[in-house]
Amino acid sequence: MMSGLFITLEGGEGVGKSTQLRLLRDALQSQGHKVLATREPGGSPGAEDLRQLLLFGKNPLSLRAEILTHFAARFDHVDKVIRPALAEGRIVLCDRFTDSTMAYQGYGRAEGDPAILDLIAVLQNQLGLTPDMTFLLQAPRDVTRHRLAVRGVPTDRYEQADEGFHARIAAGFRAIAEQQTERVQSITTANCSEEAVNSLIMKEILSRLSHV
Amino acid sequence: MMSGLFITLEGGEGVGKSTQLRLLRDALQSQGHKVLATREPGGSPGAEDLRQLLLFGKNPLSLRAEILTHFAARFDHVDKVIRPALAEGRIVLCDRFTDSTMAYQGYGRAEGDPAILDLIAVLQNQLGLTPDMTFLLQAPRDVTRHRLAVRGVPTDRYEQADEGFHARIAAGFRAIAEQQTERVQSITTANCSEEAVNSLIMKEILSRLSHV
Repeated sequence: MMSGLFITLEGGEGVGKSTQLRLLRDALQSQGHKVLATREPGGSPGAEDLRQLLLFGKNPLSLRAEILTHFAARFDHVDKVIRPALAEGRIVLCDRFTDSTMAYQGYGRAEGDPAILDLIAVLQNQLGLTPDMTFLLQAPRDVTRHRLAVRGVPTDRYEQADEGFHARIAAGFRAIAEQQTERVQSITTANCSEEAVNSLIMKEILSRLSHV
Repeated sequence: MMSGLFITLEGGEGVGKSTQLRLLRDALQSQGHKVLATREPGGSPGAEDLRQLLLFGKNPLSLRAEILTHFAARFDHVDKVIRPALAEGRIVLCDRFTDSTMAYQGYGRAEGDPAILDLIAVLQNQLGLTPDMTFLLQAPRDVTRHRLAVRGVPTDRYEQADEGFHARIAAGFRAIAEQQTERVQSITTANCSEEAVNSLIMKEILSRLSHV
């Protein structure tokens, strides 16, 4: 049986996921919790190899193959890293998970094509692991675009996509949040300090832990 | 609509698949058919990248992730190469396809674990393309081991596996052939010349073409 807690951070490029992941990890560890902080695509050696192909490969895959490759990396990550950590009672914090595949590939690239949404749902079902809590970070595109420009690291395949793509992703994440209100909590990060967002999320996590 | 014919060659290491693929391609082309000869894992640029990871990668994937990666390569191959060729009316000859995943991963590595057989069946179903004809080539292991030793090329991850693994694969292929008698025809290649096996397969294909 799983005895840990599986928490995912979701959202588009530049909404603050990796900053919040780091703040959450530090805050939970300082309270004595055993934490594993990880990210997707990647998180295990084999999944990192697949990440390289997905983000920087010279031969783009068909949309269906891209989805299968994201899930191949995810199955490895879950089988080798996430499930063992949960079995040890850890709190697992993951930057991106299945909701990102649904938003980026299902709503972004496939524009909501029902056959593609079904493929992703079937793969999620086979995976057999759903987050206990998901925090969806949101910010207006002009804010995130500015953050990405300041960051200045080389942009990958997704960061380079056009504005229509990013608008569909944001709408996709909102649709997921509306469909799964029990699991997904939306947080707008544009007008809050990093610390304020961290406090908000920590409050929710500590409330959950006190009820487990 | 598909107007071509999709033919797969299946079987363990060293049973003669690639030789038969070449002989079939030449025989069909000499009769004026438009043929595409291909192989898995691989067959498209993105799938060949995934093939490299599967056969020679330094970071082995979990069994479920390995299956997903084989299917990721297969989805790319089908979407970008096989379906377009069939739509043009070609005869597509493919060295290995889904039966190999069922035999190698489902029966070989997972030893028939129902959850793994179900995962493979679900992915086959999502793929949405089944061969019109499959020829399962079979030979005793002492014959194929000798052929592989003579061939002398560097052996990949699967060729290096132990004898129990190869016995389970052979049993898996037999189980598939027994379950799908309409599609799969078994041919023992040990005591026949390459030309005799080719004639046998050509006769079946030409019979099928005359009835289409």
